[in-house]
Amino acid sequence: AHSTLDLHRELRQGSPEIIFGENKTPQQISDNLIRIHAAHGKALATRVGADKAAEILATWSPGLPAPSYQPSARCLTLGLGQAASPADGERYVAVVTAGTSDLAISDEAALTLQFLGHRFVQINDVGVAGLHRLFPHLEVLQKATCIIAIAGMEGALPSVLGGLLPGPIVAVPTSTGYGIARDGETALHAMLTSCASGISVVNIDNGFGAALFAHALLRQF
Amino acid sequence: AHSTLDLHRELRQGSPEIIFGENKTPQQISDNLIRIHAAHGKALATRVGADKAAEILATWSPGLPAPSYQPSARCLTLGLGQAASPADGERYVAVVTAGTSDLAISDEAALTLQFLGHRFVQINDVGVAGLHRLFPHLEVLQKATCIIAIAGMEGALPSVLGGLLPGPIVAVPTSTGYGIARDGETALHAMLTSCASGISVVNIDNGFGAALFAHALLRQF
Amino acid sequence: AHSTLDLHRELRQGSPEIIFGENKTPQQISDNLIRIHAAHGKALATRVGADKAAEILATWSPGLPAPSYQPSARCLTLGLGQAASPADGERYVAVVTAGTSDLAISDEAALTLQFLGHRFVQINDVGVAGLHRLFPHLEVLQKATCIIAIAGMEGALPSVLGGLLPGPIVAVPTSTGYGIARDGETALHAMLTSCASGISVVNIDNGFGAALFAHALLRQF
Amino acid sequence: AHSTLDLHRELRQGSPEIIFGENKTPQQISDNLIRIHAAHGKALATRVGADKAAEILATWSPGLPAPSYQPSARCLTLGLGQAASPADGERYVAVVTAGTSDLAISDEAALTLQFLGHRFVQINDVGVAGLHRLFPHLEVLQKATCIIAIAGMEGALPSVLGGLLPGPIVAVPTSTGYGIARDGETALHAMLTSCASGISVVNIDNGFGAALFAHALLRQF
Amino acid sequence: AHSTLDLHRELRQGSPEIIFGENKTPQQISDNLIRIHAAHGKALATRVGADKAAEILATWSPGLPAPSYQPSARCLTLGLGQAASPADGERYVAVVTAGTSDLAISDEAALTLQFLGHRFVQINDVGVAGLHRLFPHLEVLQKATCIIAIAGMEGALPSVLGGLLPGPIVAVPTSTGYGIARDGETALHAMLTSCASGISVVNIDNGFGAALFAHALLRQF
Amino acid sequence: AHSTLDLHRELRQGSPEIIFGENKTPQQISDNLIRIHAAHGKALATRVGADKAAEILATWSPGLPAPSYQPSARCLTLGLGQAASPADGERYVAVVTAGTSDLAISDEAALTLQFLGHRFVQINDVGVAGLHRLFPHLEVLQKATCIIAIAGMEGALPSVLGGLLPGPIVAVPTSTGYGIARDGETALHAMLTSCASGISVVNIDNGFGAALFAHALLRQF
Amino acid sequence: AHSTLDLHRELRQGSPEIIFGENKTPQQISDNLIRIHAAHGKALATRVGADKAAEILATWSPGLPAPSYQPSARCLTLGLGQAASPADGERYVAVVTAGTSDLAISDEAALTLQFLGHRFVQINDVGVAGLHRLFPHLEVLQKATCIIAIAGMEGALPSVLGGLLPGPIVAVPTSTGYGIARDGETALHAMLTSCASGISVVNIDNGFGAALFAHALLRQF
Amino acid sequence: AHSTLDLHRELRQGSPEIIFGENKTPQQISDNLIRIHAAHGKALATRVGADKAAEILATWSPGLPAPSYQPSARCLTLGLGQAASPADGERYVAVVTAGTSDLAISDEAALTLQFLGHRFVQINDVGVAGLHRLFPHLEVLQKATCIIAIAGMEGALPSVLGGLLPGPIVAVPTSTGYGIARDGETALHAMLTSCASGISVVNIDNGFGAALFAHALLRQF
Ligand SMILES: Nc1ncnc2c1ncn2[C@@H]1O[C@H](COP(=O)(O)O)[C@@H](O)[C@H]1O
Ligand SMILES: Nc1ncnc2c1ncn2[C@@H]1O[C@H](COP(=O)(O)O)[C@@H](O)[C@H]1O
Ligand SMILES: Nc1ncnc2c1ncn2[C@@H]1O[C@H](COP(=O)(O)O)[C@@H](O)[C@H]1O
Ligand SMILES: Nc1ncnc2c1ncn2[C@@H]1O[C@H](COP(=O)(O)O)[C@@H](O)[C@H]1O
Ligand SMILES: [Mg+2]
Ligand SMILES: [Mg+2]
Ligand SMILES: [Mg+2]
Ligand SMILES: [Mg+2]
Ligand SMILES: [Mg+2]
Ligand SMILES: [Mg+2]
Ligand SMILES: [Mg+2]
Ligand SMILES: [Mg+2]
Repeated sequence: AHSTLDLHRELRQGSPEIIFGENKTPQQISDNLIRIHAAHGKALATRVGADKAAEILATWSPGLPAPSYQPSARCLTLGLGQAASPADGERYVAVVTAGTSDLAISDEAALTLQFLGHRFVQINDVGVAGLHRLFPHLEVLQKATCIIAIAGMEGALPSVLGGLLPGPIVAVPTSTGYGIARDGETALHAMLTSCASGISVVNIDNGFGAALFAHALLRQF
Repeated sequence: AHSTLDLHRELRQGSPEIIFGENKTPQQISDNLIRIHAAHGKALATRVGADKAAEILATWSPGLPAPSYQPSARCLTLGLGQAASPADGERYVAVVTAGTSDLAISDEAALTLQFLGHRFVQINDVGVAGLHRLFPHLEVLQKATCIIAIAGMEGALPSVLGGLLPGPIVAVPTSTGYGIARDGETALHAMLTSCASGISVVNIDNGFGAALFAHALLRQF
Repeated sequence: AHSTLDLHRELRQGSPEIIFGENKTPQQISDNLIRIHAAHGKALATRVGADKAAEILATWSPGLPAPSYQPSARCLTLGLGQAASPADGERYVAVVTAGTSDLAISDEAALTLQFLGHRFVQINDVGVAGLHRLFPHLEVLQKATCIIAIAGMEGALPSVLGGLLPGPIVAVPTSTGYGIARDGETALHAMLTSCASGISVVNIDNGFGAALFAHALLRQF
Repeated sequence: AHSTLDLHRELRQGSPEIIFGENKTPQQISDNLIRIHAAHGKALATRVGADKAAEILATWSPGLPAPSYQPSARCLTLGLGQAASPADGERYVAVVTAGTSDLAISDEAALTLQFLGHRFVQINDVGVAGLHRLFPHLEVLQKATCIIAIAGMEGALPSVLGGLLPGPIVAVPTSTGYGIARDGETALHAMLTSCASGISVVNIDNGFGAALFAHALLRQF
Repeated sequence: AHSTLDLHRELRQGSPEIIFGENKTPQQISDNLIRIHAAHGKALATRVGADKAAEILATWSPGLPAPSYQPSARCLTLGLGQAASPADGERYVAVVTAGTSDLAISDEAALTLQFLGHRFVQINDVGVAGLHRLFPHLEVLQKATCIIAIAGMEGALPSVLGGLLPGPIVAVPTSTGYGIARDGETALHAMLTSCASGISVVNIDNGFGAALFAHALLRQF
Repeated sequence: AHSTLDLHRELRQGSPEIIFGENKTPQQISDNLIRIHAAHGKALATRVGADKAAEILATWSPGLPAPSYQPSARCLTLGLGQAASPADGERYVAVVTAGTSDLAISDEAALTLQFLGHRFVQINDVGVAGLHRLFPHLEVLQKATCIIAIAGMEGALPSVLGGLLPGPIVAVPTSTGYGIARDGETALHAMLTSCASGISVVNIDNGFGAALFAHALLRQF
Repeated sequence: AHSTLDLHRELRQGSPEIIFGENKTPQQISDNLIRIHAAHGKALATRVGADKAAEILATWSPGLPAPSYQPSARCLTLGLGQAASPADGERYVAVVTAGTSDLAISDEAALTLQFLGHRFVQINDVGVAGLHRLFPHLEVLQKATCIIAIAGMEGALPSVLGGLLPGPIVAVPTSTGYGIARDGETALHAMLTSCASGISVVNIDNGFGAALFAHALLRQF
Repeated sequence: AHSTLDLHRELRQGSPEIIFGENKTPQQISDNLIRIHAAHGKALATRVGADKAAEILATWSPGLPAPSYQPSARCLTLGLGQAASPADGERYVAVVTAGTSDLAISDEAALTLQFLGHRFVQINDVGVAGLHRLFPHLEVLQKATCIIAIAGMEGALPSVLGGLLPGPIVAVPTSTGYGIARDGETALHAMLTSCASGISVVNIDNGFGAALFAHALLRQF
């Protein structure tokens, strides 16, 4: 068999195995979506490019409920459910981006949070080139249980947030930028050496991983 | 003035500014310890080598309460308070190391947690070269609100924990190892690409940063 | 002449020269397959992409026995022979992958072993994100004369196997992953600094090289 | 001869050749200081460690005016002249640091500016971990003809200044930090990919170079 | 909203926000061009590839003034205005390239300067492989208020100019070259370690950033 | 003008300027070929891909002598002249490759030597995986005035030649290989640290540069 | 407790846990030597510098059998036993070095083999700068069950052996060399991209790891 | 035996084996100097630090001719012979440095040339920060059979010489510089991507290797 699915993960960690779509064939992704959906009633595949998604949808078995594709988040889902804004007093995650170019990663994080049943708000394009754009959102940020801070280029946004906010910040470097931005390595390394506190970091463009970390954290309440 | 101390940090983030000792002169560290202690009743300086600590203690103003030095953690503290094991039902952080060589970083994290008033347990030398050593500690790990997982060389411990535990794991790569371990870069990058979930990462040897992140997280309860 | 084939290699090392297809033209690959097959009765070209393979097959001289193409392994073969499971007591190589995405490299290793006349078993998708998946296979792994352990991302599988198994483990890092996985460099370096023992390493995605090493080892019996 | 001094540099660029002390012997530095002082009435050697400076001063020819040593800036000077605060309306350079640990580089820049006859102000320890510390200095920063912004670790200060100030900012990354700070490379690369505008960058710890650039700029008025 | 435009930037820094086109969708670029043009009467988007530009122009709302596209500079502009040579005594920027291959970056810098209302001259293909080609232009270079020096491969041109000219030189490394030129990193690092003085550096291929720095500098007069 | 051709180079260095085709437009290459051919009676453009070459040839001005294209060497030439084997006693360059995959670089070097009027022999596919293949060629290698040794992967061929031959060896690393071969960087760095003597190195895939160096050397006789 | 010794390792893998001495305190090493010796009758600590070894020996408890120190191998041992040459027909490992400078790593490998009860021969200083030095040893190399090939600088020795010998070669890169040898990284990467077959690789200077791999391999007979 | 000296090297390559002193013990260096001197009447050890040299001289066997030590070149020699300036019309090597800090490498190259019986001239401190310093030496440079060009920091000197001179240039990058100079890697890579022609490169600080290459070249006459 090409895959040994981890069907006990929901028990151990409160979420089904989520499929990493990038290096899998369409056939492998379809198989796994079907098996996970059968076991858990929902399924998610991340990092599925538009072409691969089209191929999966085109060859989907007619008798089965078909996944829906979110192009910005590059995700296929089955049984995703509704997104809902946090009600008053409800815990939520704030997903913040430095620039418009980081939106896809914010959407990947948001969709994963939705899949896992969490509340979140998205705040976009408030990076350090124009810091005043951040201030209208400070209260929402201060009340979040966890902040996911997404930035490319020099990745300074988490440092600025880390200096201002009390809560834990999961920093996500993105591959936005060129030249010595090195497809996100510079932002990654900068975030890891932040002089501000309360910051930890996940892999470049890994909106999914930040959401999973927030999930592990939110389950502690 | 050589320093502009951030005396509002306790208000914003629930902890006094903590002094980064590595690139400061003994005089600068002494000054800052005194001023922070005066404002907050306690003070901590991290990454202070044994020689620099000795010089600071030897030239300390006789009239003032002197800091105490913890050589393994390489920290100077004023007003540190007692460490206490978590009582039944009390929230705590589990600080785990892969090898004996990672103990200093575990001690830096533990001492910072103590300084910030948190409970913690330390579990040592249970890395993947002999995985069975981990199993007696599984229950303690599962109940922790947050795990700090410290490992050098290939840094595989957080991946293994991430596959087994439900809670959030802050991974700390260490500079243990040689050759292509590259003073901790290999462990750092391996942890960032972990295939397990619920893991985020801080800088190499940054036990302090992991404790500060746990602090931000624990303040949310 | 574009190539100086090493037709004495079978004598020196018990295998014909195997063609590295990646940087060769279709014409060069065809020529070499024909000449090696003429000398040794079999021939293998690795790292031949699907398009190049199609071009080679389309322009193959009608009078000659044509190679067959295995797309997952990206190999062209002439005179490959049958694969057979190891009989009881027969020596074999265990080829293990951490994830579904590493399957192509496992297939390259397996096909090379088959070409060289060795027995092997393939075990797939049993990496550290769900370690329990490994345990049903422990006996087969313990009895193998040599283990080929294939993993991308943080590459932790060989470390875990190295802690559990007595036999020699040839670790193969793969380019599975993104961001700081750096197309396999992180897994490569992590495997090289493994704290477990009995592990040596080959180049990224080099299933072929791992099989050749196993071949050199198996010839010693 | 060990050196071919560039005695026309003052004509071409308005400053005598400045001696790079790091890889020179005490004898070579002494010789060059004497020859440059003879030609221009003043001389400066940068990156001279405390031990080397002591050796130079101890073996200085008694008949000659001896250089004075500034340990924080690690510079030897002959004929340095007085530093003076900028008078009202006078052009000046603002030299800003993110942390106390960056003070030595600020002092190197300041001393070089003084040697070249320029006015400057130094503002210390106002980095992003506590952004409010920056605000009392905004007016002085806005009026400066040129800002030299010095920061280690993630190097976010120039980005924040670049978003707030109209004038040209010369960013100086420092080797403050550890682990993936990589002795200043992370700060350097982060500054180069800054999303803010009006920023250019010099080598790690190169306070001297930033001052020389400011000098070239100030000579245009 | 996908973007939070910084509409106060003209006040703070004398130029509207300029759109970074590389990681944005055609729709995002169009929206932003329209909103910025509405607020400031002109708009600029950089790093827009030919295909994306074509798509933007093809789907542009008929009622609105359409941007024009400069393929060499890879820029879209609205309300760009005329370029004019510097009149006698007028301040100008000299934009110099080492080779023909660096022309696109020179054009990006020039167009940005034009957009910001500055005068400039372009001098092309005068790098160190044939230094005599530089000499006819020395007077124009000496009189420039600021020099933008653009070079790929080993990036030696700014060092040579830095040895000859009195004014400030903003060095722009380009991705021209192959192999160990590493897409411009070698030129970048070489420029940063230049032994000549009066040089600061921006990111690889960042003609835009060099022009913005020149703008900040020219506003000081 | 897009280019400032160096028409005195033949005087200074005995060869016309040779056009670097990689980052130039078809139009720029055509213009330069025509101008150089007009001045020197011959012209060469290197690193011109097949598509770009086709475009240049398709749009060539009918009245002018058209360049011919050598696809393996990726070069366009005007007035190339005949290649001829070295006569007895005539000086020549030996161009040796480790593998078939390095042939394109050997052809680039050979064609450049031919363009510059030198004699050469090409020896292919004699790398260290089968060292005996080298021995039939030892006499030809020993008599060469200069050896150009071309190898990818680990780049061991120049080291072996350096241990056996008396003459100067110009080593050319190639981008042949995958994974940690890093597109030729590993071979480049290995060649630079060779323990054998009489070896110097040029950039990855730089057959042209090796030929130019041989040209400078041969002109000394 | 500072260490959780793995006292079942002998059962699982036929050797006691071996102490990694580099990042441990003298006290930690002493404790572990005593406990392992108590459990297994022998003990080995690797990577113990001369000063640390002296301190351990000076403070050793008088009542206990003291370890002996091998300075070239940088190892402390208890109960090491005699080294013996392989008798006729006995299996052995050949430990080969490229240069005199690699001797320490060869000694570490040899001593580890001796500790584990294996036979071995050492052959020194037969690298590619003078290949003829290798030939007198070919028969001994061909008969070895496993070859450990140790080389610094460009690391070409394993490639040459891989082309000549039938058996498995464990390549050990060393930190011998300077500049771009990068403390062994160049040799490491070169060995991993070897064009010869039957080669796998361990970490830089890891003679210990090569011996452990040979041990795992020899236990299969 | 610790070393297998290559006593046929003089026959093959016209020079005795030269001892690489950096990673050898004093005893190993002494042994090898004595044996090589016995075989060839002269001997040279490079990269011998001052302390190691003192130890070798202090323990030298009284009956034997003792080596002399050149501290700047860090070399020990036996039977070195006289240096002599090139007579009129005699072939010579020009050894040029960019800065005073590169003198040690120039001296290593010069001493190696002297040991091998060649004529040379040394020209110091004529780098690009003051190009006019180069011009008085142009004639000597143009007449040299081979130029060794030594530079640190950005390493631009060989590019400038390559544009001006007809002969072959062996470029030697040095570790002069700091920060992103990366101990010579930036200069090394810059030299390898030089846009000038007739340049090849050796390892960082490898004055020895450049001299050996010049030796191989000069033996062709
Ligand atoms: N020289 C060495 N190089 C690499 N690993 C070693 C070395 N010596 C011992 N080890 C391994 O390092 C592991 C111990 O890590 P630690 O718990 O930190 O002592 C042991 O289980 C050994 O397998
Ligand atoms: N061990 C440590 N590692 C990283 N950051 C630290 C450490 N100790 C203190 N810091 C942070 O470093 C900042 C101080 O930088 P500086 O102004 O240079 O002292 C403080 O605000 C702390 O948040
Ligand atoms: N300074 C040097 N840099 C590089 N290689 C050297 C140097 N000095 C001697 N060598 C070479 O290093 C080889 C010796 O390596 P080993 O056997 O370790 O002494 C000799 O054959 C010399 O060709
Ligand atoms: N701290 C410094 N950092 C960088 N360059 C410097 C420094 N001090 C002096 N320099 C430059 O280094 C050049 C000298 O190199 P050298 O000939 O080796 O002394 C001088 O022309 C100065 O322009
Ligand atoms: Mg924006
Ligand atoms: Mg241990
Ligand atoms: Mg899986
Ligand atoms: Mg501070
Ligand atoms: Mg040109
Ligand atoms: Mg071949
Ligand atoms: Mg030797
Ligand atoms: Mg100088």
